[in-house]
Amino acid sequence: MEALKYSKQQLIPLYLCDRHRELPLNMLTRMMLDVSGSQTNELEGDKVNSYLKENDLSWIILQGEFNITRMPKVGETIEIETYALAYNRLFCYRHFNVYGEDGTKIGEAVVTFAWLDLNRRKMARLDSEIIDLYGAPFEKSIRRLPNPKKPNETSASVTEFDIYYSDIDINNHVNNTIYMEWAMNSLEIDFVNNHQLTYMNIKFDKEVLEDQQVKVYSDISREESKVVTAHNISTEGQTNAQIELRWTER
Amino acid sequence: MEALKYSKQQLIPLYLCDRHRELPLNMLTRMMLDVSGSQTNELEGDKVNSYLKENDLSWIILQGEFNITRMPKVGETIEIETYALAYNRLFCYRHFNVYGEDGTKIGEAVVTFAWLDLNRRKMARLDSEIIDLYGAPFEKSIRRLPNPKKPNETSASVTEFDIYYSDIDINNHVNNTIYMEWAMNSLEIDFVNNHQLTYMNIKFDKEVLEDQQVKVYSDISREESKVVTAHNISTEGQTNAQIELRWTER
Repeated sequence: MEALKYSKQQLIPLYLCDRHRELPLNMLTRMMLDVSGSQTNELEGDKVNSYLKENDLSWIILQGEFNITRMPKVGETIEIETYALAYNRLFCYRHFNVYGEDGTKIGEAVVTFAWLDLNRRKMARLDSEIIDLYGAPFEKSIRRLPNPKKPNETSASVTEFDIYYSDIDINNHVNNTIYMEWAMNSLEIDFVNNHQLTYMNIKFDKEVLEDQQVKVYSDISREESKVVTAHNISTEGQTNAQIELRWTER
Repeated sequence: MEALKYSKQQLIPLYLCDRHRELPLNMLTRMMLDVSGSQTNELEGDKVNSYLKENDLSWIILQGEFNITRMPKVGETIEIETYALAYNRLFCYRHFNVYGEDGTKIGEAVVTFAWLDLNRRKMARLDSEIIDLYGAPFEKSIRRLPNPKKPNETSASVTEFDIYYSDIDINNHVNNTIYMEWAMNSLEIDFVNNHQLTYMNIKFDKEVLEDQQVKVYSDISREESKVVTAHNISTEGQTNAQIELRWTER
């Protein structure tokens, strides 16, 4: 069985870009998830969505590991390609490739998805008949992405964020990609200005709700020309997400 | 002389929408300005941009008045139409229409633009030869949009906002549309949830720079079923922008 590849082109408008005329990673992630969502929507006349709806299930994202050669630029038409890589009883792994306008690969990611049972609020077993529609091979063993580096609790800086209307998405919780923005925004503007993102590993533990207050613990470590920032997104003393970012100097 | 109309279609993706599956006004504004920017880029082989560059000039926005019947929805293809309405020695007025997928008008706006002399950091006289390219009539008199309602200084709430990397645009200052987000985010989430925006009047006085701290003074007044919120965006005791929003209950 061969995984079904699905791809979409996307023009990068100025109004979604940063001061470097580049698309930020949080926005690229939104576009990538939009493409995988479209694959699902177009699969055998919406069969996946119908099944999920009937069974009160929802896709959730557990972790994502991103490698970035360069970010998309204003005016560039990128191509986002995705396919289900493999699945086991609980997890489905999805691969993404991002191609620049000249056809070279500028980024890729592996994202771990699962099904949430909306009534019981816990993970549900994947249904082979449904997942087979994506053409991904079943694997008995579980693939593990590496854990994101943790910030050093004693030396980490703490940044507090309030939650606003614009952070909440249709699932009535803070959108996943806002966590990435918080991690970035916990760093000095000068730092972000002078560095280019090359890697992100984000692991989601617990959703953030609209009446919570967020603390982001962040630290920076340097090894030669490579810089790693480690972030813990937390509410009420509990970890909601861990993020490791790797940077090079611009 | 007849004003050149220019329009573009835009599919509204889920990843730019709020929990009500609607495009927020700040994002719609970015799309509208993108369309007027495209008109300029395509006018007589980039003649306007060349002129601005040669003379160290830049378009700036002074004020915008928006009337909204309803916000664009996820999956809808809207059409944004724009044309230069009129100009005088200093100001150029531009009209925008936003049409829903069924062709009915769902919003419109008038925005006042001017030229900034980038060396002297003050407004410059518009050049008739350049502005005539847009086909807008010259008017001797100055059109004045109404001033936004001011918040009551003694009873207004104060919300502080830090400035983050993601707020800064290619002009190295806080993007205009972030002011709108601040105004919205200065209100309780429940309020924004339960109300629909029908009008915005935003007047820009002074840019916000990356090392500043922002205070937003906001108050709410109610007259029958209509609600008005008035916002003063300020840094270091000076007003950067004034915003009036009108709402109806959802």
